Amino acid sequence: MQDYRIRVNNKAVDRISVLDRGLQYGDGLFETVAVCKGVPLLWHRHWQRLEQGCQRLGFSVPDQGRLQNEITIITEGVDTGVLKLVVTRGCSHRGYAPDANSACNQIVYLFPWPDWPGKWRQQGVDVRLCATRLGMNTQLAGIKHLNRMEQVLARMEWQDEVAEGLLQDQEDNIIEATSSNLFAVFDNQLYTPDLSRCGVAGVMRAEVMEHASSMKINVNIEKLSLARLQSADEVFLTNSIIGIWPVKRIDSTKYPVGVITKSIQNRLGSAYCEKAL
Amino acid sequence: MQDYRIRVNNKAVDRISVLDRGLQYGDGLFETVAVCKGVPLLWHRHWQRLEQGCQRLGFSVPDQGRLQNEITIITEGVDTGVLKLVVTRGCSHRGYAPDANSACNQIVYLFPWPDWPGKWRQQGVDVRLCATRLGMNTQLAGIKHLNRMEQVLARMEWQDEVAEGLLQDQEDNIIEATSSNLFAVFDNQLYTPDLSRCGVAGVMRAEVMEHASSMKINVNIEKLSLARLQSADEVFLTNSIIGIWPVKRIDSTKYPVGVITKSIQNRLGSAYCEKAL
Repeated sequence: MQDYRIRVNNKAVDRISVLDRGLQYGDGLFETVAVCKGVPLLWHRHWQRLEQGCQRLGFSVPDQGRLQNEITIITEGVDTGVLKLVVTRGCSHRGYAPDANSACNQIVYLFPWPDWPGKWRQQGVDVRLCATRLGMNTQLAGIKHLNRMEQVLARMEWQDEVAEGLLQDQEDNIIEATSSNLFAVFDNQLYTPDLSRCGVAGVMRAEVMEHASSMKINVNIEKLSLARLQSADEVFLTNSIIGIWPVKRIDSTKYPVGVITKSIQNRLGSAYCEKAL
Repeated sequence: MQDYRIRVNNKAVDRISVLDRGLQYGDGLFETVAVCKGVPLLWHRHWQRLEQGCQRLGFSVPDQGRLQNEITIITEGVDTGVLKLVVTRGCSHRGYAPDANSACNQIVYLFPWPDWPGKWRQQGVDVRLCATRLGMNTQLAGIKHLNRMEQVLARMEWQDEVAEGLLQDQEDNIIEATSSNLFAVFDNQLYTPDLSRCGVAGVMRAEVMEHASSMKINVNIEKLSLARLQSADEVFLTNSIIGIWPVKRIDSTKYPVGVITKSIQNRLGSAYCEKAL
């Protein structure tokens, strides 16, 4: 495949009106979907989150059939790739009040599969704690909206081989990494931060929680301090593209690639798409 | 003039690549400037805030001369209007890490002057308290970045003749209105909320503070609770387009259009642009 493919509002174009509210205010949502053997993985979960996001932000849900048709078109002949969807509230003139007559804009991108080192999945990744913090707002927490300035600033904090950066909220709770969710293992149980005030409730986070439950591994959703995280038996990161990355180091704290992490990785590998991971 | 004019990256086009990071992440800044008798008002203040925002977000400041040239082109033959500038970090593929080689994108819009009721400036406006809250983040506070989902959700809370909605932070402090700053008068002194953790430091807010100082009116920047605001002698709102709107009501609390508000309005009127206001 060529470098990337783009379709905007069901047409093979790559430009949008500068009156689009996604551009003017970040007034929209996105999803990042792994495509493996031509199939968008965990589509039902991505669709569900997109639908919930539209409801939370108060704009009309796109037509699922039409969106799936767009995905079929853009993934044609592609085995493995990263599909990105952006849905915005549409266009309007200046001013925060939306135009009631404006239809949503829908953008579908297909990017090549990223070239992360293969060893990251087996041997684990190095992670750092970011200085950038997440603001807290229950109205926006959990959904994958387009207001991502905090993640951009956090990601700009490093240029070296560190794989991810952890973000704390304003009250020193560890919430997530810039583009992945975090799990810690204590006494053979999973712990993942509460995302009711900030953070993105990842599709892979939900998938991991479901697998863990079926494997009789307890999952606890609660506040997580840095000090507690430093004493974890194992730590791993999840998102739709990376699947699961064991964490072998957070700044100066080291972790083993442990049994629980590996068992969930294996479970996910066969259920998800080993080739993509 | 026709409905609106748009120029993107120094050309008379109205579309932008969907790889733009303003669209993908709200990774950019904007300014809204009153144009009166063909002149962009308080340009030095707008430029200064834009420049500070670029520095805070870590992207290169646009060339001021070239930007001013664009403004000259787009305002040609126009007496009164609203100029909007958007500067984004430019384009990149998927992922929060910016492309180091990408140049900023610059959009200049010119919209007609809004048709607010003329009496709002003399007789004051009705204001409501919004349920939507502002998240707090010192890194983003003050600058006029493109992550404006909170303002959009707040503005969607009403459709009636209410002119503005007040926003509180997560700790119940009154911060600003959806698109204007707030001043309260107690004992002939001005009070305006501290914006070090959230809110936009408005150009007209700075202008009003400077005029007040030259008029020997004390200006206090501090935390402001709703209860304290309800006991204010006078309340007014400011932004670059409205200038000053006296507030005659916040929900069920009524205020007079008082002496301090009128005196600053008068001072501003002659210094700013009476026609535009």
